[in-house]
Amino acid sequence: MKKAVIIGMGFGGLRAARALSGKGVEALVIDRRNFHLFQPLLYQVATSFLEQEHIAYPSRALLRTLKGINFRLGEVTGVDLNNKVVHLADGDASYDYLVMAAGSVTHYFGMKSIEEQSFDLKSLDKTVRLRTHILENFERAAREPDPAKRHALLTFVVVGGGPAGVEFAGSLQELIRFELVKDYPCLDIADTKIILLEARGSILPFLPEKQRTYALRKLSEMGVTVSLNTQVSGAETGKVLLANGSHIPSHTILWSAGVQAAPLAATLTIEKGAAGRIRVEPDLTIPGHPEVFVVGDLAFLEQDGTPLPMVAQVAMQGGAYAGTTIHKRIKGLPVAPFRYFDKGNMAIIGRNTAAVNAFGFFKFTGFFAWAAWLALHLYYLEGLRNRVMVGINWFCNYFFRAQQIRVISTPIAVKEDVEPPKAEIVSTVQSG
Amino acid sequence: MKKAVIIGMGFGGLRAARALSGKGVEALVIDRRNFHLFQPLLYQVATSFLEQEHIAYPSRALLRTLKGINFRLGEVTGVDLNNKVVHLADGDASYDYLVMAAGSVTHYFGMKSIEEQSFDLKSLDKTVRLRTHILENFERAAREPDPAKRHALLTFVVVGGGPAGVEFAGSLQELIRFELVKDYPCLDIADTKIILLEARGSILPFLPEKQRTYALRKLSEMGVTVSLNTQVSGAETGKVLLANGSHIPSHTILWSAGVQAAPLAATLTIEKGAAGRIRVEPDLTIPGHPEVFVVGDLAFLEQDGTPLPMVAQVAMQGGAYAGTTIHKRIKGLPVAPFRYFDKGNMAIIGRNTAAVNAFGFFKFTGFFAWAAWLALHLYYLEGLRNRVMVGINWFCNYFFRAQQIRVISTPIAVKEDVEPPKAEIVSTVQSG
Repeated sequence: MKKAVIIGMGFGGLRAARALSGKGVEALVIDRRNFHLFQPLLYQVATSFLEQEHIAYPSRALLRTLKGINFRLGEVTGVDLNNKVVHLADGDASYDYLVMAAGSVTHYFGMKSIEEQSFDLKSLDKTVRLRTHILENFERAAREPDPAKRHALLTFVVVGGGPAGVEFAGSLQELIRFELVKDYPCLDIADTKIILLEARGSILPFLPEKQRTYALRKLSEMGVTVSLNTQVSGAETGKVLLANGSHIPSHTILWSAGVQAAPLAATLTIEKGAAGRIRVEPDLTIPGHPEVFVVGDLAFLEQDGTPLPMVAQVAMQGGAYAGTTIHKRIKGLPVAPFRYFDKGNMAIIGRNTAAVNAFGFFKFTGFFAWAAWLALHLYYLEGLRNRVMVGINWFCNYFFRAQQIRVISTPIAVKEDVEPPKAEIVSTVQSG
Repeated sequence: MKKAVIIGMGFGGLRAARALSGKGVEALVIDRRNFHLFQPLLYQVATSFLEQEHIAYPSRALLRTLKGINFRLGEVTGVDLNNKVVHLADGDASYDYLVMAAGSVTHYFGMKSIEEQSFDLKSLDKTVRLRTHILENFERAAREPDPAKRHALLTFVVVGGGPAGVEFAGSLQELIRFELVKDYPCLDIADTKIILLEARGSILPFLPEKQRTYALRKLSEMGVTVSLNTQVSGAETGKVLLANGSHIPSHTILWSAGVQAAPLAATLTIEKGAAGRIRVEPDLTIPGHPEVFVVGDLAFLEQDGTPLPMVAQVAMQGGAYAGTTIHKRIKGLPVAPFRYFDKGNMAIIGRNTAAVNAFGFFKFTGFFAWAAWLALHLYYLEGLRNRVMVGINWFCNYFFRAQQIRVISTPIAVKEDVEPPKAEIVSTVQSG
């Protein structure tokens, strides 16, 4: 029986595994985490809207229902393309067919200081640390008598005007405006500030002009300061440095200004495209290796003159294509080249506020776009139970503004990100 | 206006704060965590039954609705009884009245090796690490070819036959029997073992003889090995050492064999009772300090010849009493001594299996006891949303056996507990 190995349990890897299920192939899915993470909702974990466990689904629970698919928790250190072996930190796994769906990591463009001092929305544990960091900054601000220091603690800088950055900024603003101000009567809402920095001339570039303007207006109305054509050059403790020489006093940077191929790509001596992505043939295979597929963020393929974007849609379609194609190859059936079908784009800014651009001709904003966004994300979430739980959370948040996950649950993990508490303090009894 | 300080946001501290709300007292609640933790359900977080955030409720959210009550996140380092000042790691807080409700910590009876290598069910982050540890042991067992080593990885030792130990053992057995065996087709259920060690001659000593026998029988029927009159003397990596000279090969120890007063008690040079608890007057105050109340696990008081037990009930009643008494003292009203009313005891063993002993005359077991246990715990859980969420979880677990929180969410925090993965492995493709 043919053996397949799938590297990565993200959107691409999961779809590849499903396509291979019951097709007479013995497949092993390898991931360094034991769960499938629904990354698009990570920002809501960071802002206390969702429990971390509700967007993470155990990989074994997803795969055990698939015929012939096994799971292995492990870190892939490299791939021997000639001997068809995947190397892990603790062993090897041989294959007849390989699907590389390792995804992407944050791109810091060589800025070490940013890499060390910023947060991103790529992993669950780091996101929970961001939530902890935000809440701890409010606690520290509550006992900080120096207005300037307090202001810096309550200034949150978001770098990158893509969906992640915009959604996080809007969501954080709602957390602060509707929950945290009530939690900290001693703090003035005017002390808090969310600054969204975008290097280019507009946010959400993939949306039509009209919707970009809408998003920009809504963010401003919500109180988020958006600064376009503004580049970040680095960070110091309590400072975000800008390319124009000025700086912003802040202890929190969310970096969502770029992604690049996962480190696995760099370990392979094959041609790369932009962002270190592996150049693939029209059938998503590596040149000279028709048995090795690369899908999702890890793959670089141009379609109609433009590279496929690094988004979930591309990974899902690519993963499904790879799985089906492996089956066809084994059966000796003809294989058509991969063709990405763009269903459109959407972004949520706040309650009743979103922009949808579906199939290039359904363009709408406001409540219906917002409802469509929620519905679609619930649909793509894995597992009925998680859908129910997330649905209840959204319902409670919408009608009762009940964001009750403001829990500093990982004080140990977060230590590294937090400065020692200030020496001088004001008792909240006086200031409360 | 009189100032009160409440140390601890557990069952006692919260009840004291509520009793003082709107009574013309300015109270400051201090806790090192920013949430009120519902400890009785921690074991269900450890066994993937409940999300960690569902039994933790933000302290500020609970207190902001109370008039005159403020919160401060901070570590209490000591109390100056003569100058009426509470010392924190980062400042001081003065008081006219003080309520010490710092609770208890695990008692290792001087066994350093146990303290270093065991888990307990006292804090949220450590409990999540226990969940991670259990799941990682299964992952390691899945790629462990040596039967003896595999067996040790899948042997879980629970020390202490109190409610926490019994409930954890039963719950873990359900997780393994109904979920993990499906997750790991390559593992044999016969490889897994849960051993409950109790130093005394019986488990759940606070229950009547008949119910103790019932619990013991049910645990055995579920496949939990209960070993009475068995004392633990220490631990080595992969080994639990017994006083009789033998040992049990295991990588997991849950220590629930004893608790003692929180370290705060030791910082005070006043008379202590058993387990380092502070001896208090019949009105729960420290001798010579009618303005200082000690409640819950921290306080030692004999009633009808026996010391009050270290349970939530005592803390709740003591906290409420302290709050009301402070108000009465200020108003110059007469104060009756504290009188603990024991509503009874209960313990859950597994689905449809529990024992209830209410008010000393309602004694029943089985389904109705189980239902009563769930209902009572839902009732005492803080917040409607948490009740709904926990209710849904229990519903799903009961009818669909959906324990989907098998997420290794804190690989960083857990590193310390986990040995480096084995070098030799078996691919789950072969064994799966």
